[in-house]
Amino acid sequence: MTNPNNTATVTVLGLGEMGRALATALARAGHPTTVWNRSPGKADALVGLGATEAATASDAVTASDLVIACLLDAASVHQVLDPVVDRLAGRTLVNVTTTTPEQAGEIAAWADAHGVTYLDGGIMAVPSMIGGPGSSILYSGSSDAFDRYRPLLDLWGESTYFGADPGLASLYDLALLAGMYVMFAGFLHGAAMVAGAGVSATEFAERAAPWLAAMTGGLAGYAAVVDGGDYTVPGQQSLEFSDLGDMVAASAAQGISTEVVDMVQRLIRRQIDAGHGKEGFARIFESIKQPA
Amino acid sequence: MTNPNNTATVTVLGLGEMGRALATALARAGHPTTVWNRSPGKADALVGLGATEAATASDAVTASDLVIACLLDAASVHQVLDPVVDRLAGRTLVNVTTTTPEQAGEIAAWADAHGVTYLDGGIMAVPSMIGGPGSSILYSGSSDAFDRYRPLLDLWGESTYFGADPGLASLYDLALLAGMYVMFAGFLHGAAMVAGAGVSATEFAERAAPWLAAMTGGLAGYAAVVDGGDYTVPGQQSLEFSDLGDMVAASAAQGISTEVVDMVQRLIRRQIDAGHGKEGFARIFESIKQPA
Repeated sequence: MTNPNNTATVTVLGLGEMGRALATALARAGHPTTVWNRSPGKADALVGLGATEAATASDAVTASDLVIACLLDAASVHQVLDPVVDRLAGRTLVNVTTTTPEQAGEIAAWADAHGVTYLDGGIMAVPSMIGGPGSSILYSGSSDAFDRYRPLLDLWGESTYFGADPGLASLYDLALLAGMYVMFAGFLHGAAMVAGAGVSATEFAERAAPWLAAMTGGLAGYAAVVDGGDYTVPGQQSLEFSDLGDMVAASAAQGISTEVVDMVQRLIRRQIDAGHGKEGFARIFESIKQPA
Repeated sequence: MTNPNNTATVTVLGLGEMGRALATALARAGHPTTVWNRSPGKADALVGLGATEAATASDAVTASDLVIACLLDAASVHQVLDPVVDRLAGRTLVNVTTTTPEQAGEIAAWADAHGVTYLDGGIMAVPSMIGGPGSSILYSGSSDAFDRYRPLLDLWGESTYFGADPGLASLYDLALLAGMYVMFAGFLHGAAMVAGAGVSATEFAERAAPWLAAMTGGLAGYAAVVDGGDYTVPGQQSLEFSDLGDMVAASAAQGISTEVVDMVQRLIRRQIDAGHGKEGFARIFESIKQPA
């Protein structure tokens, strides 16, 4: 309690795996931390760290100037907070619940109408990473709230503020998560391809993880082509060369679903069919920007 | 020419970007290198490095004990080599042309029937990486050929031998490439999501590249769950929590195609609909293994 930054009182609503990780980091740093979960039995370890378990959401909200919401979705934010909005007035709400940008905007407008300062957060980490290296959290909404609570927010990971539009953090969050989930699906597709030849997923991962990490080195190059808008820049791998027919056929020959690689092949084929086969692979960006 | 390993004569058939990169590494190391391409004008820089351009594929094949084929596809391998197969007899063919495992097996059987020693290769690198760090090449087929020419093959990158089945390298190659192409599509989907908010692809890549590289750290964990076959192991993110409804909705709200993220969402939903919503995300492996 010797660090004055650690005197801010804070409440965490929602004690799923992520909510518990966030609250643990706050309690460990010495913040007076109040926690609440809809169903009981999630707070025991936190109470052991000195946190206080509130019996009701109303008690939880009134305990602190700063309220963190880490709930299932946008609907659950309203379910929990609508009945206690009068208690929330004058406080700051940092909502790290995963929502769409539109939902973040709606919740921000609701908060504003009720005198609640609103900061939206998107967590780019799994619960076990919170407070450790590689954890990054994106924020948008009230810059005052971000500046005031920055030392506390930094306990969870690297904090980045994107702007006043409350939906920006969610949009960025979802865009990065899209990349992650799609990469995971691609990895598991590869693992399913080699499984038929007796290769374990673990053996495949030992090679695939460094391979994919190395291949992220190519993303800046694709981005430069996309931003330049000229897909004929020399030195690129052409769409024709990128045709995934062999990959789809090899997947089918293994008896597995081809839908993961079919997705990429469709994006490639639409550009080839439109006459752009000699242009660079980055042109599949245009297939995504213009729905078929 | 002082290194005895560098006296092996070698021919490279096919001078696309990759073929030129392979031949460049060989010529620079001092190997007597013969090159050939179906259309002329691709060999000038190589001739400047001391390579010899052959006028015909037949001349090219007879010039060396070791013949590298780096062509467009399996059909082009036969188009180039069928007419000169009598000249190829007694020599070693290393085929790094991208093929399916089945095609590699067929070419290996054809080579065997004509007295040609066959080694199949899958190149896990872009042309600019050949001979530098991070370049990896997978081989299967003749172990004698791999052992004999290993010092030469190592000039291109890290060489790994997978086994006598000539299709193994291709299968592994395609599986790793599947992961890469799918990851690229996921990245470009994310870039398209934030483009509507005025974020450049370059700015997105600066955050997405280290994020995706860090997330490859999770692949070994998914692989362990897949190999263990128990998707109820505690500590995993559940399929229900992984539902990508928000991501699909946010993509649609940006007016872009949802097909990239729809692909992952379908894999998730099939498992949830089958009653596995509380189990771990790695279970989408089962959606891929069992076509819908």
